[in-house]
Amino acid sequence: MENKVGDEMYSMIRTLYPICRSITGDGVRTTLAEISHHIDINIVEVATGTQVFDWVVPKEWNIRDAYVISPQGEKIIDFKASNLHVLNYSVPINKTISLDELRKHIYTLPDQPEWIPYRTSYYNETWGFCMAHNDYLKLEEGSYEVVIDSDLSAGSLSYGEFFIQGESDDEVLISCHICHPSLCNDNLSGIALSTQLAQQLQGRKLKYSYRFLFIPGTIGSITWLSRNQEKISKIKHGLVVVCVGDEGQFHYKKSKSGDAYIDRAVENVLNHSGHDFGLIDFYPYGYDERQYCSPGINLDVGSLSRSSHGQYDEYHTSKDDLALVSEQALSESLTCYLDVVDVLENDQCYMNLSPMCEPQLGKRGLYRKLGASEGRAFGEMALLWVLNMSDGKTSLLDISNRSGLAFPEIKNAALALKQAELLQ
Amino acid sequence: MENKVGDEMYSMIRTLYPICRSITGDGVRTTLAEISHHIDINIVEVATGTQVFDWVVPKEWNIRDAYVISPQGEKIIDFKASNLHVLNYSVPINKTISLDELRKHIYTLPDQPEWIPYRTSYYNETWGFCMAHNDYLKLEEGSYEVVIDSDLSAGSLSYGEFFIQGESDDEVLISCHICHPSLCNDNLSGIALSTQLAQQLQGRKLKYSYRFLFIPGTIGSITWLSRNQEKISKIKHGLVVVCVGDEGQFHYKKSKSGDAYIDRAVENVLNHSGHDFGLIDFYPYGYDERQYCSPGINLDVGSLSRSSHGQYDEYHTSKDDLALVSEQALSESLTCYLDVVDVLENDQCYMNLSPMCEPQLGKRGLYRKLGASEGRAFGEMALLWVLNMSDGKTSLLDISNRSGLAFPEIKNAALALKQAELLQ
Amino acid sequence: MENKVGDEMYSMIRTLYPICRSITGDGVRTTLAEISHHIDINIVEVATGTQVFDWVVPKEWNIRDAYVISPQGEKIIDFKASNLHVLNYSVPINKTISLDELRKHIYTLPDQPEWIPYRTSYYNETWGFCMAHNDYLKLEEGSYEVVIDSDLSAGSLSYGEFFIQGESDDEVLISCHICHPSLCNDNLSGIALSTQLAQQLQGRKLKYSYRFLFIPGTIGSITWLSRNQEKISKIKHGLVVVCVGDEGQFHYKKSKSGDAYIDRAVENVLNHSGHDFGLIDFYPYGYDERQYCSPGINLDVGSLSRSSHGQYDEYHTSKDDLALVSEQALSESLTCYLDVVDVLENDQCYMNLSPMCEPQLGKRGLYRKLGASEGRAFGEMALLWVLNMSDGKTSLLDISNRSGLAFPEIKNAALALKQAELLQ
Repeated sequence: MENKVGDEMYSMIRTLYPICRSITGDGVRTTLAEISHHIDINIVEVATGTQVFDWVVPKEWNIRDAYVISPQGEKIIDFKASNLHVLNYSVPINKTISLDELRKHIYTLPDQPEWIPYRTSYYNETWGFCMAHNDYLKLEEGSYEVVIDSDLSAGSLSYGEFFIQGESDDEVLISCHICHPSLCNDNLSGIALSTQLAQQLQGRKLKYSYRFLFIPGTIGSITWLSRNQEKISKIKHGLVVVCVGDEGQFHYKKSKSGDAYIDRAVENVLNHSGHDFGLIDFYPYGYDERQYCSPGINLDVGSLSRSSHGQYDEYHTSKDDLALVSEQALSESLTCYLDVVDVLENDQCYMNLSPMCEPQLGKRGLYRKLGASEGRAFGEMALLWVLNMSDGKTSLLDISNRSGLAFPEIKNAALALKQAELLQ
Repeated sequence: MENKVGDEMYSMIRTLYPICRSITGDGVRTTLAEISHHIDINIVEVATGTQVFDWVVPKEWNIRDAYVISPQGEKIIDFKASNLHVLNYSVPINKTISLDELRKHIYTLPDQPEWIPYRTSYYNETWGFCMAHNDYLKLEEGSYEVVIDSDLSAGSLSYGEFFIQGESDDEVLISCHICHPSLCNDNLSGIALSTQLAQQLQGRKLKYSYRFLFIPGTIGSITWLSRNQEKISKIKHGLVVVCVGDEGQFHYKKSKSGDAYIDRAVENVLNHSGHDFGLIDFYPYGYDERQYCSPGINLDVGSLSRSSHGQYDEYHTSKDDLALVSEQALSESLTCYLDVVDVLENDQCYMNLSPMCEPQLGKRGLYRKLGASEGRAFGEMALLWVLNMSDGKTSLLDISNRSGLAFPEIKNAALALKQAELLQ
Repeated sequence: MENKVGDEMYSMIRTLYPICRSITGDGVRTTLAEISHHIDINIVEVATGTQVFDWVVPKEWNIRDAYVISPQGEKIIDFKASNLHVLNYSVPINKTISLDELRKHIYTLPDQPEWIPYRTSYYNETWGFCMAHNDYLKLEEGSYEVVIDSDLSAGSLSYGEFFIQGESDDEVLISCHICHPSLCNDNLSGIALSTQLAQQLQGRKLKYSYRFLFIPGTIGSITWLSRNQEKISKIKHGLVVVCVGDEGQFHYKKSKSGDAYIDRAVENVLNHSGHDFGLIDFYPYGYDERQYCSPGINLDVGSLSRSSHGQYDEYHTSKDDLALVSEQALSESLTCYLDVVDVLENDQCYMNLSPMCEPQLGKRGLYRKLGASEGRAFGEMALLWVLNMSDGKTSLLDISNRSGLAFPEIKNAALALKQAELLQ
């Protein structure tokens, strides 16, 4: 009850954690099915071979088992223990090879010798295993049996979409990637937060429409954009939801323009969040903001996360696990996202109806009674800021930014002034 | 003789200090009469009940005496000892009450237990006393006789106005509030400096016209603006003169736009003043700049002070007394105001008449004789800056700001170049 | 072989060092003749008395010998030992005078008592000697024989010009002053670097045309500008080459506008040079940029140097000698100039031909094979930046500045993408 939404998000992550996802295949489908238990997403399948802009939807990858048996007959690598052990998108293999040959197909992290790295090879057909460097060092000369029981064949790419119609057709895009296997922060946290956010917005009276995309990274956003080009221009603001479950400092990676409305809204929220945070200028790497901000798409999409892309030790390793994320961190992140929605939904430009000097707040019950008392309630400063700046062109977000007062306080002051018929 | 103007301003403060002023009443009239001994101000009376924008001119307040007599028959609070003892604008009262009842009407400063606070209740009819917290703690149970011999009745609001016609009808507004009782820095210092400034400008050949307002805070500026709407658009620049007598660091509170001409002029002067100073972004609180910068008035008015509004310990207490202000501080403040006037009066855009490369200064007697000597008089740099930047669009103030050379030096260089027919 | 160009530049400085140059006369002609051994400059003579804008070409100065003989018959000052001993442009004199009279004509540096200062008196006809302050203190009472065997008479001002025609008539101006006598950093270093730069650009396929001016300071640039007014508008960017031989930190003095293209190009190069550097805002003093940036000329000309004008102890003294400059420093400076030329020549705006999301780099052999490896080659980031920013309006220099990647890397990425037909 203390942190019900945090618990719900964490619980969803725990459910999704064991599944071996990739950019295509049944792992993605199982994940989308789980999301469907919370919100009524539309699940879309796009056939292998479909041209999507400069790309082609790849073959579908499915895997049942994978292992390596040592010369001593011991199963030293086992997909069933961790799906990170297999190079994601490995082609099937079943043969006995020398240690030298095996070594060419093994990935480790010498600097983190107990951790299994996460590696992929989507567009180059090969096979491989990932393992702890300490285990790698123990490998002895001899013949190894290597088995990857996978398929790489025609099928389809799967993604989920959830749409909430608001008063306006102008859209806010919320996008998260769903292609990573057993990695909690990157990006089961994003899936859980997006799902929770959709649940909370569903049924609310909203100004904007909200589009949630649950897609495999890169090829998923390219596929959606390619097949929904008529919808692109409706997207006014967007956020890529990633790495929102760890306890690291908040980070906001700005949109390409750097001063888009979404950038100013998120910065305002973070400024008043009580959390330390870092601002990161756009760079054409990271997650799907790369596609949304490509020159032909050019959407105002940023990314609000805790630890940012590649900037935490556990990134893309077996330590990005259930211990790295917490109910508390997820819940704080959700609050930030909801506060951003509050700005998007409630920001507007008012006109002061009594613009010649200050109106007399006292006769309207809006003024402290003693003219020279020392404690000045912030409420009064918010009233004065809103009155002073409301010229029909300056928005509440602008007023919040200039005054240094939090958006909700400015919003509340505006509502009180509207009620007193001082604002329109 | 050393600091004649400082002495004059301090002497005026000493004369005005004992008077019990408020936003209306005879205290204001006596103050205006004293100002009249120095400059020929026009004194205006506006009747109680007059509508001024959203406000109404309030009843006039006058007070003759006030005191509290203890159960032991001792006069423990006495208006005659300090007019701050009475809640400003208190309604009349004359009765005997319990200590509990008395306490509800007493204001103290627990953090500064020896000081009397200054409190007002202009628009809420009540009564009260202010006292040192240490004295408050000594109050014993029993019956107290409380007397406030005041009137709150129809009358008028008084203010003073002084106008100097310059060559142009464009005006510079100099505004100070005159409503505070025995408080020296806030704002007898402002009254004294404005008076002295008016005396010094009177009779000078001036480009701008100068309008000096001596008004009660808030209601005074609202009244003047409301009744002089046709004059508002003539005001091109303005300064609110407050807290200019203490020895605190200079502060300039910018106009609403933040980069108005007056803002750049004052910043330039402070940069070269030799004093440390702080710049304060506009906020819709403080003094009458709140009204001048309201959205329907929107004048370029800032405020140049020493310690700024509310930012010194003695603010609105009995310690804002004759010891807090000094001849030296007043005189330094006046110098800054005069330097700002110097910029306003003398700034202009010149055109270099010999713009193809540098003109030969030597043949015009404007160049040091030895081409490679090491000591470079600043005078020469000022000449070179003025020549380099004078394209008919760049003003002397711009040149001073870019070069880092003081405005007077740039002005003098321009005059020398004009004499040499190199500038127009 | 290690530093062939550094050796060549140093060797040229050594050859030019003994010559007594001034703003006119045979010293300049001998210097131009030496430059002619390296590049085929056009040598121009402009007659004494010629009007050049506000100035007149002065009389020509030549000197054969100068000395002072002490009462003891000793030659205590000797032009043949150092040409700095004579006040540059001294009129001839041959007489015996008292010590008191002699002192009025002697210049020393009391703070650097072993160094001879460099002094001039171009536009005020007088005579004088410069000497070490310690020697000055040893002068005894008595009669001194002073001899300056010089001419100041009608002749001409000499300068050199070298032009390389590029594809475009748009010009880059490279300007250095040649009027200083035995001073190495100021400005034999500039002469040597300009000459070497001209040699290296000559014969290259170039987008811009390059104009090199070897001119006496001030009067030389004024003369060239005055007599080539129709060419001024062709000059798009320019650099004044001075003090490029000492080991001091790099400095770039910006053009008058401060954000001209040349300013951004030089700052970009310095940012990636691996050297510390300082940026200096334009001021109307220093070298010939004063003339190029005068309001009627208004060219985008900055100045890239090591130690900047007047900011090193040896400036304008006998210690600005062959020990102050080095092959290494000259060579580093040349590299910076060549890098600036690389930007000017190769910067352009490309258009991404596959702007809808990222193109698939892998199928074009432009992508690392493993999608999630941790080491990210900068090469890939350069590709992504160029693709993301190439909208036909954003230049490679802009992309380099925004990405923080060096211009050559961005340029190479663009070439690879152009080859892959992803860029136009």
